[in-house]
Amino acid sequence: MATKITLPTDRYFDTYPAQKEIALQLYNQVADKPLVCPHGHVDPAMFADPNYSFGSPADLLLIPDHYIFRMLYSQGIALERLGVPRTDGGEVEQDHRKIWQLFADHFYLFRGTPTGMWLAHELKEVFGVEDKLCRDNAQEVYDHIEAQLAKPEFRPRAMFERFKIEVLATTDAAADTLEHHKAIRESGWQGRVVPTFRPDGVVNIDRPDWLEQIEALGETMGHDISSYKKLIQALEDRRAYFKAMGATATDHAAQIPVTGELTPAEADAIFQRALEGEADEEDAMLFTAHMLMEMARMSIEDGLVMQFHPGSFRNHNELIFDRFGFDKGCDIPVAVDYTESLEPLLNKYGNDTRLTLILFTLDETTYSRELAPLAGHYPAVKLGPPWWFHDSWNGMKRFRDQVMETAGVYNTTGFNDDTRAFPSIPARHDLARRADANWIANLVVRGVIDMEDANEMIHDLAYRLAKKAYKFE
Amino acid sequence: MATKITLPTDRYFDTYPAQKEIALQLYNQVADKPLVCPHGHVDPAMFADPNYSFGSPADLLLIPDHYIFRMLYSQGIALERLGVPRTDGGEVEQDHRKIWQLFADHFYLFRGTPTGMWLAHELKEVFGVEDKLCRDNAQEVYDHIEAQLAKPEFRPRAMFERFKIEVLATTDAAADTLEHHKAIRESGWQGRVVPTFRPDGVVNIDRPDWLEQIEALGETMGHDISSYKKLIQALEDRRAYFKAMGATATDHAAQIPVTGELTPAEADAIFQRALEGEADEEDAMLFTAHMLMEMARMSIEDGLVMQFHPGSFRNHNELIFDRFGFDKGCDIPVAVDYTESLEPLLNKYGNDTRLTLILFTLDETTYSRELAPLAGHYPAVKLGPPWWFHDSWNGMKRFRDQVMETAGVYNTTGFNDDTRAFPSIPARHDLARRADANWIANLVVRGVIDMEDANEMIHDLAYRLAKKAYKFE
Amino acid sequence: MATKITLPTDRYFDTYPAQKEIALQLYNQVADKPLVCPHGHVDPAMFADPNYSFGSPADLLLIPDHYIFRMLYSQGIALERLGVPRTDGGEVEQDHRKIWQLFADHFYLFRGTPTGMWLAHELKEVFGVEDKLCRDNAQEVYDHIEAQLAKPEFRPRAMFERFKIEVLATTDAAADTLEHHKAIRESGWQGRVVPTFRPDGVVNIDRPDWLEQIEALGETMGHDISSYKKLIQALEDRRAYFKAMGATATDHAAQIPVTGELTPAEADAIFQRALEGEADEEDAMLFTAHMLMEMARMSIEDGLVMQFHPGSFRNHNELIFDRFGFDKGCDIPVAVDYTESLEPLLNKYGNDTRLTLILFTLDETTYSRELAPLAGHYPAVKLGPPWWFHDSWNGMKRFRDQVMETAGVYNTTGFNDDTRAFPSIPARHDLARRADANWIANLVVRGVIDMEDANEMIHDLAYRLAKKAYKFE
Repeated sequence: MATKITLPTDRYFDTYPAQKEIALQLYNQVADKPLVCPHGHVDPAMFADPNYSFGSPADLLLIPDHYIFRMLYSQGIALERLGVPRTDGGEVEQDHRKIWQLFADHFYLFRGTPTGMWLAHELKEVFGVEDKLCRDNAQEVYDHIEAQLAKPEFRPRAMFERFKIEVLATTDAAADTLEHHKAIRESGWQGRVVPTFRPDGVVNIDRPDWLEQIEALGETMGHDISSYKKLIQALEDRRAYFKAMGATATDHAAQIPVTGELTPAEADAIFQRALEGEADEEDAMLFTAHMLMEMARMSIEDGLVMQFHPGSFRNHNELIFDRFGFDKGCDIPVAVDYTESLEPLLNKYGNDTRLTLILFTLDETTYSRELAPLAGHYPAVKLGPPWWFHDSWNGMKRFRDQVMETAGVYNTTGFNDDTRAFPSIPARHDLARRADANWIANLVVRGVIDMEDANEMIHDLAYRLAKKAYKFE
Repeated sequence: MATKITLPTDRYFDTYPAQKEIALQLYNQVADKPLVCPHGHVDPAMFADPNYSFGSPADLLLIPDHYIFRMLYSQGIALERLGVPRTDGGEVEQDHRKIWQLFADHFYLFRGTPTGMWLAHELKEVFGVEDKLCRDNAQEVYDHIEAQLAKPEFRPRAMFERFKIEVLATTDAAADTLEHHKAIRESGWQGRVVPTFRPDGVVNIDRPDWLEQIEALGETMGHDISSYKKLIQALEDRRAYFKAMGATATDHAAQIPVTGELTPAEADAIFQRALEGEADEEDAMLFTAHMLMEMARMSIEDGLVMQFHPGSFRNHNELIFDRFGFDKGCDIPVAVDYTESLEPLLNKYGNDTRLTLILFTLDETTYSRELAPLAGHYPAVKLGPPWWFHDSWNGMKRFRDQVMETAGVYNTTGFNDDTRAFPSIPARHDLARRADANWIANLVVRGVIDMEDANEMIHDLAYRLAKKAYKFE
Repeated sequence: MATKITLPTDRYFDTYPAQKEIALQLYNQVADKPLVCPHGHVDPAMFADPNYSFGSPADLLLIPDHYIFRMLYSQGIALERLGVPRTDGGEVEQDHRKIWQLFADHFYLFRGTPTGMWLAHELKEVFGVEDKLCRDNAQEVYDHIEAQLAKPEFRPRAMFERFKIEVLATTDAAADTLEHHKAIRESGWQGRVVPTFRPDGVVNIDRPDWLEQIEALGETMGHDISSYKKLIQALEDRRAYFKAMGATATDHAAQIPVTGELTPAEADAIFQRALEGEADEEDAMLFTAHMLMEMARMSIEDGLVMQFHPGSFRNHNELIFDRFGFDKGCDIPVAVDYTESLEPLLNKYGNDTRLTLILFTLDETTYSRELAPLAGHYPAVKLGPPWWFHDSWNGMKRFRDQVMETAGVYNTTGFNDDTRAFPSIPARHDLARRADANWIANLVVRGVIDMEDANEMIHDLAYRLAKKAYKFE
């Protein structure tokens, strides 16, 4: 007989009864609040078409989710066997039941991981699966999910509503014409799905696809992006368009967060070299550093919140990148300095209360050393939630323990799910709300704060801060 | 009706009853022990004049305390509105009741922060305020504190005695004539207030005020500090004077802790360039590195304990520095290496049992990686308590968890409050003693140590280690 | 009356009763499982001779153990007084009772340290000492241990069997002829003691003893190692010999983990410069980086597991190194980057499932930032247990908290004791098994995993993973 999935109502909380009781009381106040999702990677296409289908259970839950397939890959299972499409169109497993079986056979790998926790919630609460996935019941569970996905209530819009999503931000390239967003708005459906302006593809000249992205931007603009000046103009235009389509924020990545200004002539010289394929690493670093300054300037002008996520060495594994492309679980973090790197930007714009600069990190050493002190001083700086590998129970605990004493709660920005796995959204918010309740309850039970404060803080962390920081009001 | 400030007698301790009982038992042994304050920034002037008045509640509690106003500034409140004086004498808020109201309106920002914890203790235990500060009772609380400050028992000397301060070390520039310390000694008052020799102003040639400080030192000495040799002589003389005035320690800062020797000729060449305003960054680094070696040498000769606090990028926000000067909440930590940087100094002096070198850090990653191994090996090295941003409940917990297993308790130096906020001193020591008791109780209840050891350790951590390390015996 | 050593059966576990009960239940399942010891520094000589004697209590427990004497040294006690032999044959204390007394007088230094925890277990469980060591009972305890050591059941082979050691790996230089291992195999004794191939001495050309080691390797090979080609051939030969003698793994150190390939001609040019004593730091870095690539290649060919331990600044204290040699407690960790440094090696070999590369660190910041993401992606990468300074209760806790969520349990390799202190082996494994049980119990009680998973995980972590990763099956 199969083991049941257990999802105790008081799960994850620390176990001392006095604290857990308060945690539950706080959690229950926000457990059913709408979800504010200001940063994520869900495909807007799924909401543009009211009849959009998620495909098979493997299509929905496994093949696109690098959190899952990287773990299987780390144990020597080829991505081809998991159906991950090759960029060269080479053969990969097409039998989704075989893929699902392979996943079930290795489900034990997720013991104690956030993916394991999200999946338990998702399988049981979203799909109604009662039994813990294992080798023996794999096909039965597959049948069950497949049957669910055929029902109207498993269309994306229905799930969006069932999940009580108040707003969902997607992430979109500068050149993106936002067709799906347009379709959503024109469809009369009331779900709020907004784009986020992410221009990395055109401002990070060392990206393997930079020229392609610049050409795409030219096509969208209707003229070639042949100079730095034209790039700036295009970016300003696209930001205005994104804003008109509901965007409230931009998003930026770079391996290191260096900032600093170039003259327009210097910037153009680098841009021209990049067009010729002759820019070097130093050029790329200087250009990104300069464009971050420009992005802050534009944010002050147009009011879009600026998000910055540095510190990931993208596509560390060349073999995997060459064969399968971007976002295949082989982006590996590096140590990052914010204090010196951001000084030029913060000295120019950090005192300006019109700017909201939300910083994220993969280098947790910067929480207490740099990020909390920066957020606890500069009016423009706020801190995003624990990101990516750190968006886990322990990661959230470390963030709260290391950030809050110095930055205070009110220089943080609540939770975002940052996910492309749409059905995992409720599980992720639920985990975060439990982490908030647990953290606050510990402060109460130790006499650091009283319940009056606690009752405000839980609403701030679980709902209000994200809404306010991202200007969704 | 206003909410009351709650200060449970068992506050802050972890909540498992078995552990908390032991924690309380340990804490109660030291709760009333005298306070040893070997490192801080209290102004000695307040003890020189028996009738010294602290001014208004805002004068005492807000305007000089960058822990408080940086948090308000981070939320977009201009420092001018908080009455922080401008270096150009420009207009700032003069109405202290308005400043206090602004503080009360934003008191929620301190939820869960050490400042919030200290203030609760301070307002209730030191000033007898019963109600939690909020928008509505701000003026009432102001009235109450104002009335208290008018009483003789709120003169600094009376508070010093009430706080049971056994010794209080101030921090004083090399050129300081220690007039206030002299006045205290000559007044016949029994309070022990001693200076600490902090020569950063004259040894860190990249400081914006270096030349000014060198001139001040020349004035104190009665002759120009026109050469490296004269600088060394002046420092030796001043150390002797400080020692005669009760000092037992020196204190040193640098952004990076590089150490290394120059020849006297090399040192003088840099010194001359600095006098001409022509020294560069490399010069500054080499000169500070050399002067740290010299300071260690002098400490071996005169027995003054050497404290070293590297890792702060001072005055990160130029606008704030230009307008308001030093120590305005915009010093931001950077990553620091001790292992390689200190190697020259430790190889020359680290085996010498006459030297006590107390290291501090703002980069907590060095606790387990570098500082504990260094302190657990070199006879000269001891570790100072968690510093500045880390002088908090969680910061103390991280220090104990990451340092003690490798360095052992007896290579650490107890607590110091490092504060310029005089009335916060009891709150800070109380928090640290609770952190000690909590940490030790956890070791007891888990069977790592027995009560016999615990009873020694609590006295060591709360009182004896600081006294011994700083030679206050 | 002396205080008794207390070793509660539920020691070290967190104290909330619900969790502790589960922890005990898990721990009891593995408390008596055989010990797998895949990495350590025990001298194989002690098993080669059935009548080997450990010498005096000081010989066995103090003089060779840098965990112990570094702590005494840090408090100003000269190593000479502790009987640590000088490389120049200079005089050191010969009276082992005096050494033991000095140790007992300072036993309080180990309060709350892993050494203190191991010693309590070792003294009581292995040697039957009932009283806590102190100034007064030092000689009595010495008498007791001395009497025990005279008994047959305190011969190494008897203890090996009593400890239920299933396999014990030693660490051996490339040139080592493995005489003791041969003697063990030929003796007919059933204990499994295997060598580990550690070629640092001949591949790290910046080691003070490199030339000596190269000459030793030449002697073992019967011809001079006069070229890079001959070095490679010698290494391949020696690996084959080690493997024939039971080795399943190699072990490598370097201050920084840089990897990268040279051409054979480049490698030989550096090798020749090194022979002439003319290689510089850059040469050393490039040569080690290249040899690590070669070692990975050979591991793929011969199947030996590759262990890599970077990040220790060896012999930081020159005075101690000059006087007492290697491994005297003055190796101090530095910050380390793995992501960029290992990229060449991982791009070439990291996708090869024939390679097992076990990474260790002394820089705990890399746990969540680099090591867990690398292990959670590359098929070749596994993580070794918390190492050296971090092989402690808190260190293990940090490892589990920061690694497991991202890497998963199954990209880690269980425990190894890494010790030269043979009688401490049961204490170390017991501590680790308690740490595992405590960690898993916390997951259970918080509803993250169920008991079905927990029961598997405790066996994996306490026994199976080490056996599998090191191919002891």
